[in-house]
Amino acid sequence: MTERLLIALGGNAMTGPDGTAAPEAQRFAVQTAMERVADLVVSGAEVVLTHGNGPQVGELLVKNQLAAQVVPQQPLDLCDAQTQATIGTLIQGALERSLAVRGIDRRVAVLVTRTRVDPDDPGFARPTKPIGRYLPEHAARRYVEQGETWADFGAPGWRRVVASPEPLEVVDASAAEALAAAGFLVVAAGGGGIPVVRESGGALRGVEAVVDKDLAAAVLAPVVGVSTMVIATTVEHAMVRYGRPDAWPIERVTVGELRALAAAGHFAGGSMGPKVDAAIRFVEQGGRRAAITSLELIADAAAGKAGTVVEPDPA
Amino acid sequence: MTERLLIALGGNAMTGPDGTAAPEAQRFAVQTAMERVADLVVSGAEVVLTHGNGPQVGELLVKNQLAAQVVPQQPLDLCDAQTQATIGTLIQGALERSLAVRGIDRRVAVLVTRTRVDPDDPGFARPTKPIGRYLPEHAARRYVEQGETWADFGAPGWRRVVASPEPLEVVDASAAEALAAAGFLVVAAGGGGIPVVRESGGALRGVEAVVDKDLAAAVLAPVVGVSTMVIATTVEHAMVRYGRPDAWPIERVTVGELRALAAAGHFAGGSMGPKVDAAIRFVEQGGRRAAITSLELIADAAAGKAGTVVEPDPA
Repeated sequence: MTERLLIALGGNAMTGPDGTAAPEAQRFAVQTAMERVADLVVSGAEVVLTHGNGPQVGELLVKNQLAAQVVPQQPLDLCDAQTQATIGTLIQGALERSLAVRGIDRRVAVLVTRTRVDPDDPGFARPTKPIGRYLPEHAARRYVEQGETWADFGAPGWRRVVASPEPLEVVDASAAEALAAAGFLVVAAGGGGIPVVRESGGALRGVEAVVDKDLAAAVLAPVVGVSTMVIATTVEHAMVRYGRPDAWPIERVTVGELRALAAAGHFAGGSMGPKVDAAIRFVEQGGRRAAITSLELIADAAAGKAGTVVEPDPA
Repeated sequence: MTERLLIALGGNAMTGPDGTAAPEAQRFAVQTAMERVADLVVSGAEVVLTHGNGPQVGELLVKNQLAAQVVPQQPLDLCDAQTQATIGTLIQGALERSLAVRGIDRRVAVLVTRTRVDPDDPGFARPTKPIGRYLPEHAARRYVEQGETWADFGAPGWRRVVASPEPLEVVDASAAEALAAAGFLVVAAGGGGIPVVRESGGALRGVEAVVDKDLAAAVLAPVVGVSTMVIATTVEHAMVRYGRPDAWPIERVTVGELRALAAAGHFAGGSMGPKVDAAIRFVEQGGRRAAITSLELIADAAAGKAGTVVEPDPA
């Protein structure tokens, strides 16, 4: 059986150099990223893709705010949904184009995907994930009065913070699996998935939150038969003592060694921290290999030859 | 084999009484609609759902406009995509909830779906589909200067008009079929699908347009093995001489009879016209039955016992 790979694309793979989702810059960034993914498909891999949505969901919140007097605002879970479709179909078109250029006629399917979280997750009581634009305090206070949580980030101003609860289950993973089994390259769990909680009757209800996309990918991967997960970001390696003169890049590492480095506080929360955490979880749950690297190196990283490569502890 | 039904839900099934997509009103409308769809599933039907997106995509355009100085605008094809995910996941949650109440544990899958159109479709040269809010002429002229087409609708003001090209192919129909074959109830081709055109190299590119959702449904239905298509709208029947004192409701009709009534100009363009056209096309392509009726009557209409029921001409 062909190896199935999961590639988790960082938000930087989907935005222009200025960090915004301006249509042409976004298309160009996605096309560039898909060239590398197409190389992987050519090499014989079955690929499942997930992606971040930070800049895009932030822009939707700004639109909500600025149009609030004229049209209804949509809650954060539906903004998450919106970004799955927009980024998803951009990835879809770009990857099919890159494959066609390489003589491969393959279809990409984009699945709207929910991720179940715990309604009692501590993130809801104390939101920490910053999202959207910075505003001066007086402007932020208006939204606080409407029930939102905003925090003071110093010089750049105040910014909304939302819950980033732990992903417990990618609810629609079985649909992603059905599509992969039918021969589609699948885009799923974009932006970490639409966060939902289980109601007392058993049904699922959307909640205002943003799930970390790498942690969601680690939950999705085993269900869709993925043996190798690659987290694509802006740097080639996770670093020990990042930003200090005595920093060094982590190359091959066992999951136990990486857990020890994480426990020693080497990785920043909200940045490399969740990526390292996702890689650890994936390998500990039986994954053969997780890698963290830059977009350019995903093929080599998937083969264990570039980036920070995390493998199981020796038996 | 269980019968496979396609239900095309009108925009009214997804908005509040004021016609806007305010979150709670939208959730309530969708939940009400899904009670009827769940009844159909209980009766043994395999259901594929499509839905309109007029009010929702209109609201996204307003948000684009009002936030244009702060965050990039997204093109109409990506706005179409956004509404597939938001309406799709609302339908998904509501239908799973309605089924759970009836003791049925079934999953609904929402597929981001593209519809291919002809780049030379006359709709692009002469856009006719009104969308978004009315504005006074001086405000509309600003957008005309940016390249948009706006038309004077008299008393309510000016309104943007966009292309509504003919659907040629639902590109992702095979993915919808794979999901249905795997046992999922499928939501696909929402808002008529994301319009795309084929580039010279064979790849697909999004274009600014809105495809009629009933015509797209008629293209999707045969590919996903649907024998009966029900178009749910606000009225129980299509009418001959609609709005006149001598109007009468069309009940059972052959496709030839309905085509003759359509040719005689009984159905308004942009309103009942495309629904009648979609029903005719579906039956002429081999569909067993198409029905046009109100949401409350979809189960009876699927059985040929309510609404305007269109069947093949006698052999």
